[in-house]
Amino acid sequence: MSNRLDAQMAFLNEADKLKSVIRATTLGDASRNENSGEHSWHIALYALVLAEHAPAGVDINRVIKMLLLHDLVEIDAGDAPIFGDHDITAMEAEETKAADRIFSLLPEDQNASLRALWEEFEAASTPDAVFAKSLDRFQPPNQNLMAHGGSWTDYGVSYETIESRVGSKIARGAPGLWAWLSPKIQTWFKANS
Amino acid sequence: MSNRLDAQMAFLNEADKLKSVIRATTLGDASRNENSGEHSWHIALYALVLAEHAPAGVDINRVIKMLLLHDLVEIDAGDAPIFGDHDITAMEAEETKAADRIFSLLPEDQNASLRALWEEFEAASTPDAVFAKSLDRFQPPNQNLMAHGGSWTDYGVSYETIESRVGSKIARGAPGLWAWLSPKIQTWFKANS
Repeated sequence: MSNRLDAQMAFLNEADKLKSVIRATTLGDASRNENSGEHSWHIALYALVLAEHAPAGVDINRVIKMLLLHDLVEIDAGDAPIFGDHDITAMEAEETKAADRIFSLLPEDQNASLRALWEEFEAASTPDAVFAKSLDRFQPPNQNLMAHGGSWTDYGVSYETIESRVGSKIARGAPGLWAWLSPKIQTWFKANS
Repeated sequence: MSNRLDAQMAFLNEADKLKSVIRATTLGDASRNENSGEHSWHIALYALVLAEHAPAGVDINRVIKMLLLHDLVEIDAGDAPIFGDHDITAMEAEETKAADRIFSLLPEDQNASLRALWEEFEAASTPDAVFAKSLDRFQPPNQNLMAHGGSWTDYGVSYETIESRVGSKIARGAPGLWAWLSPKIQTWFKANS
């Protein structure tokens, strides 16, 4: 038991570092950039509150667990801003290496089960993972609307870029959420360009 | 649907402010104090990883939901450091007022159900809530051990104070976790006093 708990606590102590990974998105009051730890909390809360907007059959408890874990690899690989340019192959290789290191701090059975949950999220191959990905994309534009543009202004993006990089992914798992959000973003761009 | 989602998003946008509520506990590297948003994420992850240390019958999915919500009232009431002196009656009145305002942003049915989950946590009257409270108390001393004393040093507390204010609450819901942690804290105090 004690060795097992040692391993679990090594993982949880390592997870603390996610609070120091800085994202492109700011807080709603634009006072500072958000970190990936608090972002993970916020979208897990999104899942809890917005569960009814998931397609039938989605298990919201699994979605919440995925969202709690989904960014841990950023401790080693960093956050890749959605509007930045990335070498996707290199980024995926870095994230896999990070997952190897971080999840293997856990006891072997949990390394297998929690790693599998993270891989399911990454692959977006199940309805649970697709909905989780939609929430991960749905939160930043809502923060940007609160923060008078936020990362849209910083990256100089257009509505069309948001629609293709963000909207398409929100709509895939949660069409009702994108239908609600897209006119708000369009209105913002009309007023601010 | 749209009015309902408006209400849910008003709640989730308000929740963003929890990232600006500062706690007495620091990050593990002692670089800064932790905020209540990232703390909420961390202990929800604790629940996911440490579920097997809960007494039989505890529903870990409910525990995770409670932990995602448990600190929201701090948006209005602030964080009350565990080693500080507080007027508990006044604090509870402030937190109730905060819960009235914040949960009522939600649609009526979710105001009722999520408020009930928060009240269950506060009252620590069910096995789920008791275990959730234990995790809420178990994380800060682990952060302090990483941060070479952290809030123990800031507040000048003794091992005995930790045992009575923190240890007793951890042991109530998770005796195995306190049995693992208490010798580590004792060793730290022997080396640093």
